[in-house]
Formats: sequence, C-alpha cells, structure tokens
Amino acid sequence: MHIRLINPNTTAAMTATIRQAAEQLAAPSTTVSATQPDAGPVSIESHFDEAVSAVGVAEEVLKGEREGNIDAYVVACFGDPGLLAARELTRAPVIGIAEAAFHMATLISTRFSIVTTLGRTGIIAEHLLEQYGFSHHCRRIRAAEIPVLDLEDHPDAAFSRIVQECCRARDEDGIGAIVLGCGGMANLTHAISHEVGLPVVEGVSAALKLAESLVGLGLHTSKFGDLDYPRPKPYTGKFADFSNLTLPPTR
Amino acid sequence: MHIRLINPNTTAAMTATIRQAAEQLAAPSTTVSATQPDAGPVSIESHFDEAVSAVGVAEEVLKGEREGNIDAYVVACFGDPGLLAARELTRAPVIGIAEAAFHMATLISTRFSIVTTLGRTGIIAEHLLEQYGFSHHCRRIRAAEIPVLDLEDHPDAAFSRIVQECCRARDEDGIGAIVLGCGGMANLTHAISHEVGLPVVEGVSAALKLAESLVGLGLHTSKFGDLDYPRPKPYTGKFADFSNLTLPPTR
Amino acid sequence: MHIRLINPNTTAAMTATIRQAAEQLAAPSTTVSATQPDAGPVSIESHFDEAVSAVGVAEEVLKGEREGNIDAYVVACFGDPGLLAARELTRAPVIGIAEAAFHMATLISTRFSIVTTLGRTGIIAEHLLEQYGFSHHCRRIRAAEIPVLDLEDHPDAAFSRIVQECCRARDEDGIGAIVLGCGGMANLTHAISHEVGLPVVEGVSAALKLAESLVGLGLHTSKFGDLDYPRPKPYTGKFADFSNLTLPPTR
Amino acid sequence: MHIRLINPNTTAAMTATIRQAAEQLAAPSTTVSATQPDAGPVSIESHFDEAVSAVGVAEEVLKGEREGNIDAYVVACFGDPGLLAARELTRAPVIGIAEAAFHMATLISTRFSIVTTLGRTGIIAEHLLEQYGFSHHCRRIRAAEIPVLDLEDHPDAAFSRIVQECCRARDEDGIGAIVLGCGGMANLTHAISHEVGLPVVEGVSAALKLAESLVGLGLHTSKFGDLDYPRPKPYTGKFADFSNLTLPPTR
Amino acid sequence: MHIRLINPNTTAAMTATIRQAAEQLAAPSTTVSATQPDAGPVSIESHFDEAVSAVGVAEEVLKGEREGNIDAYVVACFGDPGLLAARELTRAPVIGIAEAAFHMATLISTRFSIVTTLGRTGIIAEHLLEQYGFSHHCRRIRAAEIPVLDLEDHPDAAFSRIVQECCRARDEDGIGAIVLGCGGMANLTHAISHEVGLPVVEGVSAALKLAESLVGLGLHTSKFGDLDYPRPKPYTGKFADFSNLTLPPTR
Amino acid sequence: MHIRLINPNTTAAMTATIRQAAEQLAAPSTTVSATQPDAGPVSIESHFDEAVSAVGVAEEVLKGEREGNIDAYVVACFGDPGLLAARELTRAPVIGIAEAAFHMATLISTRFSIVTTLGRTGIIAEHLLEQYGFSHHCRRIRAAEIPVLDLEDHPDAAFSRIVQECCRARDEDGIGAIVLGCGGMANLTHAISHEVGLPVVEGVSAALKLAESLVGLGLHTSKFGDLDYPRPKPYTGKFADFSNLTLPPTR
Repeated sequence: MHIRLINPNTTAAMTATIRQAAEQLAAPSTTVSATQPDAGPVSIESHFDEAVSAVGVAEEVLKGEREGNIDAYVVACFGDPGLLAARELTRAPVIGIAEAAFHMATLISTRFSIVTTLGRTGIIAEHLLEQYGFSHHCRRIRAAEIPVLDLEDHPDAAFSRIVQECCRARDEDGIGAIVLGCGGMANLTHAISHEVGLPVVEGVSAALKLAESLVGLGLHTSKFGDLDYPRPKPYTGKFADFSNLTLPPTR
Repeated sequence: MHIRLINPNTTAAMTATIRQAAEQLAAPSTTVSATQPDAGPVSIESHFDEAVSAVGVAEEVLKGEREGNIDAYVVACFGDPGLLAARELTRAPVIGIAEAAFHMATLISTRFSIVTTLGRTGIIAEHLLEQYGFSHHCRRIRAAEIPVLDLEDHPDAAFSRIVQECCRARDEDGIGAIVLGCGGMANLTHAISHEVGLPVVEGVSAALKLAESLVGLGLHTSKFGDLDYPRPKPYTGKFADFSNLTLPPTR
Repeated sequence: MHIRLINPNTTAAMTATIRQAAEQLAAPSTTVSATQPDAGPVSIESHFDEAVSAVGVAEEVLKGEREGNIDAYVVACFGDPGLLAARELTRAPVIGIAEAAFHMATLISTRFSIVTTLGRTGIIAEHLLEQYGFSHHCRRIRAAEIPVLDLEDHPDAAFSRIVQECCRARDEDGIGAIVLGCGGMANLTHAISHEVGLPVVEGVSAALKLAESLVGLGLHTSKFGDLDYPRPKPYTGKFADFSNLTLPPTR
Repeated sequence: MHIRLINPNTTAAMTATIRQAAEQLAAPSTTVSATQPDAGPVSIESHFDEAVSAVGVAEEVLKGEREGNIDAYVVACFGDPGLLAARELTRAPVIGIAEAAFHMATLISTRFSIVTTLGRTGIIAEHLLEQYGFSHHCRRIRAAEIPVLDLEDHPDAAFSRIVQECCRARDEDGIGAIVLGCGGMANLTHAISHEVGLPVVEGVSAALKLAESLVGLGLHTSKFGDLDYPRPKPYTGKFADFSNLTLPPTR
Repeated sequence: MHIRLINPNTTAAMTATIRQAAEQLAAPSTTVSATQPDAGPVSIESHFDEAVSAVGVAEEVLKGEREGNIDAYVVACFGDPGLLAARELTRAPVIGIAEAAFHMATLISTRFSIVTTLGRTGIIAEHLLEQYGFSHHCRRIRAAEIPVLDLEDHPDAAFSRIVQECCRARDEDGIGAIVLGCGGMANLTHAISHEVGLPVVEGVSAALKLAESLVGLGLHTSKFGDLDYPRPKPYTGKFADFSNLTLPPTR
Repeated sequence: MHIRLINPNTTAAMTATIRQAAEQLAAPSTTVSATQPDAGPVSIESHFDEAVSAVGVAEEVLKGEREGNIDAYVVACFGDPGLLAARELTRAPVIGIAEAAFHMATLISTRFSIVTTLGRTGIIAEHLLEQYGFSHHCRRIRAAEIPVLDLEDHPDAAFSRIVQECCRARDEDGIGAIVLGCGGMANLTHAISHEVGLPVVEGVSAALKLAESLVGLGLHTSKFGDLDYPRPKPYTGKFADFSNLTLPPTR
C-alpha cells in the first residue's frame, strides 16, 4: 500500500517533518511518500494562503494519479485545503488532517479543544467543524499565537507556547482530549502529550491511519454523484495544463 | 463609486453578460467594470473548478487594488469561490453572488428554493447555506441539469429547462421566492420571473446592490481579526508574484 | 424612490434622530420620510413593549399604503417588531434594523458581537439570531445597561457606557465587527467606530440601504405563499379599522 | 386553583368551545374561566392577525391580574401570540397551546406531525418549533386548508378534511403522534383520534394540564432576568391605559 | 390515578426521599408508589451506572405492568436511564425527571442552568439536552462536585455546596431558573429556592405532574411506530425472564 | 495487536458472521477474537433490546480487561449499545459500528443514506446521527423491513430486500454512499456493493480498521474527565459482580 502525503505548503523541511511522523506510525506494509507543490506559499496562515495551496494540492494529486501506484492521499494542512477538489480527481481516498484529527478525537473522548498556531486561523477550523458536524464536540479553539514556520525555526519556544496553551485547555475547558491544529506539530505529539497528560490527537498520523483503513476496506472516493471526476474542459493561462484532463481508468 | 465584478471563470462572453446585467441595475453614480482571470476554467462546475478559480479571483482583487480606485468587488460565481481569501486582500467590501442572493431572498420571503445548473454543484450551495446560516430558509436545491456554458451556447433550451424547474419549485416546495444558482443566468432574471410568477432573486445584481450599500454606509471589510491582510511571505513557482505582497494603505 | 422609516416607539425625538441618520446616507434619488405610531410605548424595552409597538408598525404600513407612493419600509427598532405582519400588508419590501445589521455585519466580518441597551432585551436579539440563522456568527450579546431614552436624555453618559462595552467586545470576543443593538444609537455610529477602531454596523442605515437595494432590483415582498395579504375579516373594538382591509392593487 | 383561558381571537363561540374542552379535563379542584379580547380579529390566520391579537392577550392578562385570583393563564391560539409579553405581566405561569402540545407530544412519541388549518400559517408553527427546540421532533407540518372559522361554521366538512390529512400524516410521515394545530379543534380531539388510531395531542387541554402542573409545583414565571415586569413608562393614544402599569405585588 | 416512581438506583433511602417529595405535591386523587430495582448500583454517576440501571428500570416497568393498575411511571434519575426502553414496555406514559425538569424550566424562563452532582455526569445532561432539543435553552451545566450519596450521608455539606453553585449560576449565567440535576435533591427544592431567590425546578415533582397531566388527558405512550411493544424473542442467561414477553392488553 | 469484537446479541451464528467479516479485512499483525454476552436478547430490534444488551457489552469488556491482552474493542450492533459505558471500563479504544460506518462514509462521499433492517430501529440511528454530529450528512434512513435474524435464517430473501432498498437509495436520495445499518449484514458488503454500484460502508469492518488505527496511533480512551473509570461502589442482586470493580492498571 502506497500512501502519498501532500504537504500543501512549499517548505521542504515541513514535508520532511510530516513524512517522518507518518513513517514512524505506518503499518509495515505501507509505503509512505511525501511531496509538496512546486508553487505556493511557504506556510499557510490565512484564507488566501489556503486558496493558493488548494491548487497545489490538486496538482499533486494529479501527479500522483499519473504515477499510477498511489492508494490514498493525505492533505497535510489543518485547514484541509482543496480537500473536496482533490477527491474529485481520484478514486483513491483523500483524507484531510483536520477531519482526521476530529474523527479520532471523538472516538476517545466526548469533548475536545483545538490548539492551533495563529488565532486568525481559528475561523478556518470553526468552519470545518461546522461543515463536518463536530461543532458541539469542540469546546474551544485556542491559539498559541506562533507563526507556522516558528515550528521549524524556533522549535523550543514554539513547543513551550503550545504546551502552555494545551495545559490551559486541560485545566479550563472540561475536555478529554486535545487536537493539535497544525501539520507542522506532527513530530511533537508525544512530547506534548507527555507534558499535558491528556490524549493528544495529531492529524497527520490520524489521516495516515484513516487512509490505510479505507484502502484496507476496499473503499474508494465515491464517483457516484457530486465527487465524480470533473467534467473535462479548457483551462487557460498558467492553468492550461488542467485542460481536458484524462483521468486514469477506474482501478 | 466604482464596483468591480469578477467573473471567476475565463469565458469573456459570460463576463459581458454579467456586466450588462449589473449595469442595467447600477445606481447612476456607480461605475461598473468587469474582469475575468487570465488563467482558469472556462466554466465552474466542480470543487476542482472552484479551487482553481479562487486563485483567479484573488489575482483579480490584487489587480484591482493596484489600480487603486475600486470601492467594492463582486465575486460572480454562485459557489462564492475564494470569497474569504479575497476579503483578506482588501479593505473594500467583497460580496459573493450566492450569499447576496440568499440574503436578499430572506428579506422578501420566509422560505426559498435554489435552481442551479448541474446537480453535482448542489453540494457547494448546501455547504454555503450551512456556513452562512440559511439552511433552514432553503426548502430545496434543484438542478436544471444543464452545463453552465449552455447558458451561452444554447440559451433557448437552457431557459426552457430552467423555467421548467422553477415552476416545479413553485408548485411543490412551499416557497415564496426562487434563487437562481448561477451567475450566467444574470440576464434571464426578469424573463424567468415573468414565466414563473414568483419573485426571482439573482445573485449578480443582488451583490452589486449590497456592494453599493456597504460603500454607501462607509463600511469596509474588517481588518481586525481573521480577515486582516495576509501575513507577507514567500510564494514559489508560478505563484511567486504573491510573495511579500505590499498591500495598498488603508483608505 | 421613497422610503418610509417607521420608528416603532412614540418618541418623536427618536424619530428625528433616525430620520437624520438615514438622510445622511440615502442615495440622492431617495426620499426619506419617518413616522411613529399614534399610539404605543415611548420606548421599547420588553416583549410587552414589542407586542404593542407591532400594532403601531402595522398601522403605519397601512397608512403608507394609503398614501400610495412608498417604495419600501424600514422598521427601526432592534427587535424587528411586527416585521412579518408588516410584510403581509404590502408588496413593498419591509426591512427590520436588526436583520439589516446582522446581514451587513456578516458581509464584512466572520464573527460579530452585539452591544444593546438593557440586558433584558438580549433574549429578543437571541431569538432573532436563531430565526434568521445568524446564531453562530454572533459571539456575544452585550448590554450597556442604559434605558433606551437615556440615549436622548443623557447622551454623553450613554455614549460613554456604549463605547466602554464596545471596547470590551473588541478586546474579549474575538470579533471583526460590532452591531449596535438599538435604533436610538443611529446617530452615534461614526463616533463609536472612531473610539473603538472596529467596523460598527448600525441597523437604521443598513436597513435603508437594503431597502434601496431591493427597490433597485425590482424585488417586492412575495405575495406567493405565507406572506400574502391577510385574509380580510372583521376586527372588533379599537382595532375595528382593520376590518375587511382593502389593500392597494399590485403595483 | 383558577386557570384563565384566553382565546386570542374575538369569536365568543370559539371561546366557549375552548372552555368546554378544558372543563371536561380540568382537575376537580380547578376552576376554569375563559375570555376573549374586547378588540381584535375574529380569527387568527396570519402574522398580522397574530400581532394584533397579542395586544388583546396582554390586555386580558392585565385584567386577570386586576381580578387578582388567577393562578395561571393559557393562551389558546396555536401561534402562541404574545406569549412572552404575557409572561412579563404576571408571576403566574402562562402557557401557550402550541408549546404545550409540542411538549406533550414529545413525551409519548419520538416524532410527530402537525395538522393545522391554512398552509400559510405553517411558517408560524415552524418558527415556534425552532425557538422552542422541537424542529427535529416534527416530521411535517400539514394543512387541511380550511379557514379557522369553518371549524365553527362548517364543522362536518372541516372535521372530514382534518381527519383526511391526519390519516395521510399517519401513513406517510413515520410518526407516533399528531399535534392539532388550532385551538378551535379542541372539541374534536377524541373523534379525530378515534378515526386515525394514533395519539392526538391538542393544545388547549395540554396547556391546561401544564398550567395545573406548574401551579401545583409552586413554580411561577421567573421575575429574575428577561421576563421581569416591564419597566413602567408612558404609552400613548389608544394604548394609554398601559402607561405606568402598577402590577400586583408578588404573591 | 396510580403513579409509580422508579428510583433507578438501589438505595432505599433515596427511594423514600423521592416518594416523600412526590407525595407532598401529588393531586388528592393520585396514589404515589415508589420502587427501586432488585439489582443495580447504589448510585448513578457514570454511563456504566446508567447502563446497568436501565435494565432495572425496565424490570420495574414490567413488574408494574403485571400489577396492572399503574397509570404512569416516573424514571427518577436525572440521566433518564432506560427511558425509551421503558416506553416500549407499556402503554402508560413514562416520564424522565431530566426531561420533565427541562420542559418545566422552559415554561417559566427563557434560559436556565443545571446544577448537578459530579462534573463527570454533565455530559449525560448535555446529550439529553441535544436529543430533546433544549441545548439553546440551557446556559451552563454546573457541578457541585459531590457524590450522589452525600445527599443522604452528608446532607448539610451537600446542601451548602449546591446552594453555593446555584448562587454562582444566578449571578454569572444570565438565567431565569435553575434545574436541579439529581433525583436525590428532590427534598431540597424549596430550601434551595429560598436561599437562591430564583425559581428552582426539580425533576421528580415535575415528572409527577407531567405524568398526572398525560393521564388526565387520556394520552398514552404511542404504540404506533418506533415505541411499539418490543418484538417477543428469546433472551438468555440472567435475562431469560425477558423471553417472549406477553405484555398486557391495551387498556 | 488483539482486537475483540463484541456481538451485543447472544446469537452465536451472528458472532461468527461478524468475526469472519473482520478477519478477512484485519491487518496481518492483528488478532481478531469475537464474543457475545452470556445473557441477553438473540437479536436487537428495539430500545429495550438495546438497553439489555448494553449490560452484556459492559460485561464482555470487563472480561476482556481481566484477560488483559486486548488492545481495542468493537461493539458490533448498529445502535452502538453501551458504547460510552464500555469506554469508561477500559483505557483501550472502544468503537461502535454505527459511528465507524458514519465516519468512514463521510470520508468518501458528501452525503449518504442508511439501509437498516426494521423501520422501528430508524429512530436509534437518527439519535446517534444527532449525537455524533452527522445528521446533515445523512439524506435518509431506509428500512428493508426484515427482522434481524432473517439475515441468518432467510439470507437470500433478506439480501434481495436489502439490495432493493439500496437501489432506491441510490436512485432517489442524491447520495454518494450507502451505510448498512446492521452488524448482521457484515458478510454481504461486497455482494451488495456489486449489485448497487455505489460504495457500501459496513460498520464491523469499519470499526475494526478504526480500532487498528487508534491502537497504531497509541491513542487510548481518555481517562481524563467524563470517560474516567466509574467510581467503585456496591452493586446489588444479579449485578453484584460489578461491585467495587478493581480495574486493571494503566497500560
């Protein structure tokens, strides 16, 4: 089984962080590969960054489909950018790390809080909770107020701020679990959990396992109805490569 | 007052349709201009088309900001692609035509139905209704099952199918108004309303009026909190132009 | 275009305040007139005051219909008293200032708070948010705890209390905009916004603009279905004038 | 114990119908009296009728308070007109017949349908279901499409239509109980139930029993917070009698 | 009329407390009896305790049905354990004390808070609020953090803690009433209300009155649809007595 | 990794069906074992059956904990009976098959329908959808109207009825996937999917995979907050074995 992690931002160091976190938890028979878009933002901290990265996610799925041996995709940014678009482009399952973390958190606790990077991205998580149906499972969205790349550039200070906010969540929110709200925290899960003493759910690993699960079950993204392949059509300009997509035949 | 209509697809004929519909209803003191992205799909009929067009919408807003004399923007595709991203890029109001039509429909009726083009795009409208809070105002999302470009290429057949579905909505759904679910129907509003006998709300004109209203009120997109300008950062590849955006000063 | 503002309470000074606020923002081609009921409470601060004022609102709409040249109505009390009843009585659009402010606030921010006069009226706003679908857009309903008429009688103290509460909303609620929860604050919008630094949405002006918009769009209150004219019937006692209403023909 | 039924319309025959239905089910120690407003519509079939009748309901509560020996009130129109206003005017419990029927129906079934008179009043019930929290308990709102006064004037035809619609509800809606959506059906409950074979919940009797219950429990309408007595103030014109209400002391 | 109170735990002292509280408020013509299961937990403070006690509740209903003269049942634990199962076993109304308290609280106030025993049981109340539809009526679920049996064993300390938390609810939550979240508090209602000054709703007495009401109305648990008698079938082991239940004929 | 399937009913043949379905899909390193309670109903088709089987589920978890080598549990009845109680009894993950199927279905489609056995159990699924947050993802709950044990006793007729209802769901509901609403259908998944042509999600296998996932992630049921081990206490009668549970130490 081959699972492709797509880091929606273009920071290779974060792609490596994500891949390592996933490899440590992958089943023995699972091959994990990781990519990032050729074009896009170095980190995703706004709706605008999200919108641009969604195109990169779609391109990476199309690349994967041309490679032809990928069984599932993980979209490794907590805003799940381009998730439904990606699903349209393939029969393989595509899992977002926000949805994955939410699903897993509800299986081990009745209520959770999210600890994310910047407060301004809280609304993205809030909209996802509403769309997915988990609003009433989430007590609070908290922010450590650190830029995403601080996770790579100032890891100790970032870790300290995140732990501090997780402890507040534990002590004030009446929760059973914490969801980490950024793919770049993937390598910190165990250390945070150790400090906080609560189950800590991280989306990259959660999505990897959901992807393995769906492949194991023989379930694919439904091509019946609204996630069917996009109707082929002309695209112009720098997106001309998307024109008249010939998508791989059904596996 | 200068209002810029952004047609998120790249079909110039549809841009013209939209502009004409808006010009007919604009206030005397309002200048209407219309653009479409340099790059993107010729029509928007899937999440994938939406995702790509969102970048085009953002680029058009950035262009508008560089022009420097635009007071408000309208995103003229019924999925409101890139709406929150666009709002981050400007202090000017940015209005989506789906939200505009929903808002207006609730002011003249207690319940409405949507008549859109393809059934597969219904889920996009459904997600917007949930996010905006209008789910319980909408009785049903109906599709005429015509591709978007048929509105340009086979207008009579398209019109006939839309009217047919609107009549079903009127007779079966227990509604007071119909929302047209595609920017490309902007020039058909009065003819449809004439055939159906119900108030018919079309988003392009509705958004134009909401944009005029917000400018008239002196209200701008909030730069306090989660719609603030994106943090400047490097973008790579074909999106390198987005790097370190220097956004125009506050008006 | 002639827009009639109906101040649902009977305090003429507040009618003047509302009219002035609206006139400053009306389009050049818009005539604004303002009335208040012949009978009713001098201010609206309870469900009981609301219930009585709803009759006054309906009477003012009927008067307007007899005048015959009114294109839209604004109900200028934040509880939107008698709004659906008023809509039944006319084909002209009728806009409430609470709904208007909510709609506008969602177009420039993702989340807002309300600052109203007395805490006891918060439940009225809460019920409106639920009915209109904006509950999840509103972070908090706050009260300055000043009686409505203090806005006329002790304007400086009232202004000071309102600004204080708005600043708390800005600093504690995680919002992008503030909605002013009383028609009597219509003349304070800019001063409050100046003090607070956030977009401040005020309902009278918002409703005026929505009314202008709907008229501009040629949209009228739907007479199809549940907002149709009331069935004519006998009314008794002091309401006998409502008997067998002959409503003006369709424009 | 003295329970006052308030028929919000001014048709004395319907007041008698309601009183008889309640008397048959009242506890031996309960005195039932019934009134209707001095002024208002002969039947309630629109938001406008509702708005006017709400004043009549408030006046009847104030009369009752002056009488001084009333332990609870029932507002006997299915739209619960003026319910919250009435609660402000007294410490006695005030029960609406729509809310009463909804509460009772949820105690004996998991899902119910409503059968009301005119389709146009369905939206009133729908708004109440939302406000009270019962939307997901109600499968469908159905209308027999008979004017309210037909219940008095053409009882056989009305009964036949209602039974027909109740049978459809039973056969198509997947429900366990039916709620009758008009106070004027109070005398038909058993006959309808006999024809339909499902539990049929009627609001007048349900409200009577809830009123008896609250009095028996020593519970009164909370005067703490938003249902406190209205602040005394001047009222003008035909509502001048409401000025500076001196409400009876706490019992 | 004979109403059977079922204390779902096996502590006879609490059964007595509940019975006395109910007897004081029962109508003269109502006979109140109270039982507890032969088997089960001495108190209910977890989902596990709930699950076991649900069987005891069902057994007590079956016993009551064999006695044959019981008109309604009350399930006297705030989690309403086994409520829907109990309803399947009888045509008599079955009322849970949590639902009863919620219903009554909404009739005398617009918003309430719950004060329960242990914080860990808050989620049970939260799930019930969601299922019943009262989530938006409840401002906050508070816990006195006392084990249930402290109500019997250390009544003074327990009372003091409960009053303390009720006062916080009154002062901080913006409510009009308090719901007591444990059947074991049934005898404290008046004393708590006296200390706190707000209406205090207690479920045992509320359920008694709702049971009297439904019987008085001639309403029974619907046997049409999903609350019909369970299909008879073999049960094994210690539950063999449930095999092929022959339920009493319709009254 | 050792995953224990708990068939909540006492029909050994169904336990075997479930185990075989799971074994076919388990990872190579996963050991699957399956049990059923010593006591309880032979099938689960009502709230009453559910309530009794919840105790059996809890007992099987306690047995498993005494065995001491079980890494996760699956509760293999579509009503998820006793799920939260089971979670309190162990640090191991416990997954219900209804929740598992819902989670998986939302990952491969935007909207799904459920096809269950008897219509009367639809309300159980409906309540679960509400509690879990998936109500708006489920278009419709359909029943094949076959008793559960027909799946064992009349498999061909049962299969035929299920396929028929699945085809209706596919053709009428606007969905992308079907959820099978009974553990006893576990062996039919592929055959049904083959007939219907849509992705078909079955809960036993879905839950197995989620259990494997959680164990693989090192996540356990949170013992912080409301899923903590039950407080030890006396249990009486046939449940005396639950007294003063000494639960295994944290792994």
